[in-house]
Amino acid sequence: MTTDKPLPRAIVFDVFGSVVDWRTSLIDELTAFGRERGIKADWVKLVDDWRGEYVPSMKRVYKGELPWTRLDDLHRASLEKLVAGQGIRGLTEADLAHMTRGWHRLKPWPDSVAGLTRLKTRFIVAPLSNGNVSLLLNMAKNAGLPWDTVLGSDIFGHYKPSPETYLGAARLLDLEPGEVMMAAAHNGDLKAAQNLGLMTAFFARPTEYGPHQQYDFEATGAWDYVASDIEDLARQLGV
Amino acid sequence: MTTDKPLPRAIVFDVFGSVVDWRTSLIDELTAFGRERGIKADWVKLVDDWRGEYVPSMKRVYKGELPWTRLDDLHRASLEKLVAGQGIRGLTEADLAHMTRGWHRLKPWPDSVAGLTRLKTRFIVAPLSNGNVSLLLNMAKNAGLPWDTVLGSDIFGHYKPSPETYLGAARLLDLEPGEVMMAAAHNGDLKAAQNLGLMTAFFARPTEYGPHQQYDFEATGAWDYVASDIEDLARQLGV
Repeated sequence: MTTDKPLPRAIVFDVFGSVVDWRTSLIDELTAFGRERGIKADWVKLVDDWRGEYVPSMKRVYKGELPWTRLDDLHRASLEKLVAGQGIRGLTEADLAHMTRGWHRLKPWPDSVAGLTRLKTRFIVAPLSNGNVSLLLNMAKNAGLPWDTVLGSDIFGHYKPSPETYLGAARLLDLEPGEVMMAAAHNGDLKAAQNLGLMTAFFARPTEYGPHQQYDFEATGAWDYVASDIEDLARQLGV
Repeated sequence: MTTDKPLPRAIVFDVFGSVVDWRTSLIDELTAFGRERGIKADWVKLVDDWRGEYVPSMKRVYKGELPWTRLDDLHRASLEKLVAGQGIRGLTEADLAHMTRGWHRLKPWPDSVAGLTRLKTRFIVAPLSNGNVSLLLNMAKNAGLPWDTVLGSDIFGHYKPSPETYLGAARLLDLEPGEVMMAAAHNGDLKAAQNLGLMTAFFARPTEYGPHQQYDFEATGAWDYVASDIEDLARQLGV
């Protein structure tokens, strides 16, 4: 199938929730880890609360309350706070490091690898994520995500939705913003990208937050492409 | 074959001359281009002189005589100077842009794609090149170079042999310098990397400069690995 709509030169992807299923991955991993290590906790609650700290922790950097801090380090600080708050006992330094690296081992949604592999045949495909380069690279090696290059937030020293990330990606790719398409399961990410002139593609991930999902069940903006998943996006883009 | 020597976690490659054959690629492309466009020139001399401008042009940035300037733009400025100096007539703006983009279309040496593909199964593989990200990315798409990510000089705002490039790569990969191996056909590049604590691998490209090659016929330092080419390096590293 081909399209008569404009095509991008590069497609940059949100990762957490859009390409990988952080919630199921972390719940599965931590549940198994707790069993092996004999450590008791409400791992589901820990994972949901950990993700809950994600935006507030980045906002502290965004507002200048913290100097530039990589997401790995924000994840670690949030984890320590939650472990203390939830009275989880017996975790060693090595355990905390291993748990934090769990974000490097997130599993892709079923369509992600196939969809990206198709898109890569015609377009530059890269993550444009708040994850740091090493996190995204280790995730890609582990999960088989076939990125052409990895655009982590530490390259820009800024988190989305700072303009430095979206425009920095276009600059490094030597493309006009309108030649780059942001693809995400999050309307807010797309709105920020669209405001800066990027093309946009939405696909819903309605189980990202499990029973706690409150929005992003459907496209709420005038995005260039709305797909059911990444394979459907590839189909709509003619690859 | 396995090795009992220490293994790196990531291997970063010099590109121009080490992974791709810039001289033959550009001579072939420009000779065909001149014939098609009916433009007369000594294309071999132009290519050799163009590469001759490479180090001096970066040194102007290195010394602070120029602000940060991407390699694409240095290539373009050098080309304009040489075209004028060699009295090549009839080139349009589009021709000059096309010729400069010739550096995005360089062809790999015969062992490069196979060797990198093998190395990628066990190690992170990335270019660590003076090329800008877009140049390296377009080259990779065109030539089938299977990089895990692309470390271009514009990420660091510095050219090799500035320490910011080698140490910046280790930082983005979240590895110690000693876990990263610089691989190149240039002893000078390896010396700079080794001085900063990186591992090193050498393989000669004795025809890189054609009849003008004056050095780098063999390893001149105590490098961790000395291979005949990238496939042999993969073999020595056990993949």
